[in-house]
Amino acid sequence: MNKGCMIVCDGGNGAGKSTVLRAIEEHLKTKQYDYVMTREPGGTVIGEKIREVLLCSDTPEMCDVTELMLFAAARAQHVREKIIPSINAGKVVVSDRFDSATYSFQHYGRGLSLALIQQLNNIALDGFKADVTIVLDIDPVKGLERVISRGSDLDRMEMANIEFLHKARNGYLEQAKADPERFAVIDASQSLDVVISDAVKVVERVIARKLG
Amino acid sequence: MNKGCMIVCDGGNGAGKSTVLRAIEEHLKTKQYDYVMTREPGGTVIGEKIREVLLCSDTPEMCDVTELMLFAAARAQHVREKIIPSINAGKVVVSDRFDSATYSFQHYGRGLSLALIQQLNNIALDGFKADVTIVLDIDPVKGLERVISRGSDLDRMEMANIEFLHKARNGYLEQAKADPERFAVIDASQSLDVVISDAVKVVERVIARKLG
Repeated sequence: MNKGCMIVCDGGNGAGKSTVLRAIEEHLKTKQYDYVMTREPGGTVIGEKIREVLLCSDTPEMCDVTELMLFAAARAQHVREKIIPSINAGKVVVSDRFDSATYSFQHYGRGLSLALIQQLNNIALDGFKADVTIVLDIDPVKGLERVISRGSDLDRMEMANIEFLHKARNGYLEQAKADPERFAVIDASQSLDVVISDAVKVVERVIARKLG
Repeated sequence: MNKGCMIVCDGGNGAGKSTVLRAIEEHLKTKQYDYVMTREPGGTVIGEKIREVLLCSDTPEMCDVTELMLFAAARAQHVREKIIPSINAGKVVVSDRFDSATYSFQHYGRGLSLALIQQLNNIALDGFKADVTIVLDIDPVKGLERVISRGSDLDRMEMANIEFLHKARNGYLEQAKADPERFAVIDASQSLDVVISDAVKVVERVIARKLG
């Protein structure tokens, strides 16, 4: 049996990530692929518990190192319990965020040491890599406007300052530039139909290469 | 102002740790020391949330690496938010468990790489060390008998097999042998009065050295 593949959909808040993920799922369902939709932080019972700790808006005292370790803990569980077994079973795994988000938010955004993040990510991932990371790129101001306009509560991450979000955006673009084979940047300020169509093309390309 | 000190009370389940900690607190109160009682995993709001994830008895699927990272995350927060500020304020900090437990349970018990644990502990501790770790040493069979006889529910850690607990006990003794200056082993099979009196002597010795 062929192995499956791992596709990550990532990007700043308000870039349309949830909508694009729903469209990707709809596409996979229509095409009758065997697929798994998952997310980070989370994706497992333990990971979802860790997510609650991370996104809790009443603990602004959380240290950067603590945050980094919690993301890594959730990721370690996610990879071992869910992602690798699903790929070994031939499935298409689609994750809402993955390691790219840690580099963007914690390294580029908060300025935490790249070596430290790599150290923790290496432990968590144990050599595993996603096949592609789709980056929905948007100006953070525009992204937050969208979040606010839909009346959503802002969580701890989103309440961070706008300069942080600009740095994080730059982090996604830097990662994509450094590894163009594994990253696909989509301009998320385009009309939603175009963004979805671009994302689905990336998904199909990876599936064709890995499962074809 | 003099800096405070950090005393850890550790040992296997059923060694009488809670009772000894209550007696230490009683002693500190009587002597009118400025003190803080704390615990690991936990000790902070964030740490207590992480503790709930770690000790949850319905998630046996938790990977060793995940467990290790969660302990490290809670410790990173504990050290930065509570322990170091308390020591800087001249307080006696007494913690129910600390890094010694990770070495015993995860390295000696579960066989996780010492290098990996050191790596994570180094990140979490950032050079910080407890002044003394009191190890209440007990045969794990005897310890579990005590736990069961008081009608307590066994948590995820306690439900692990007895061989694991023997290895963990050995881990405490090995750590103490390697660093006798920073460890004080007390035979917890002695009468409780003797155990408490021995523990209080260790506490007084550290306080005299650090705050005297």
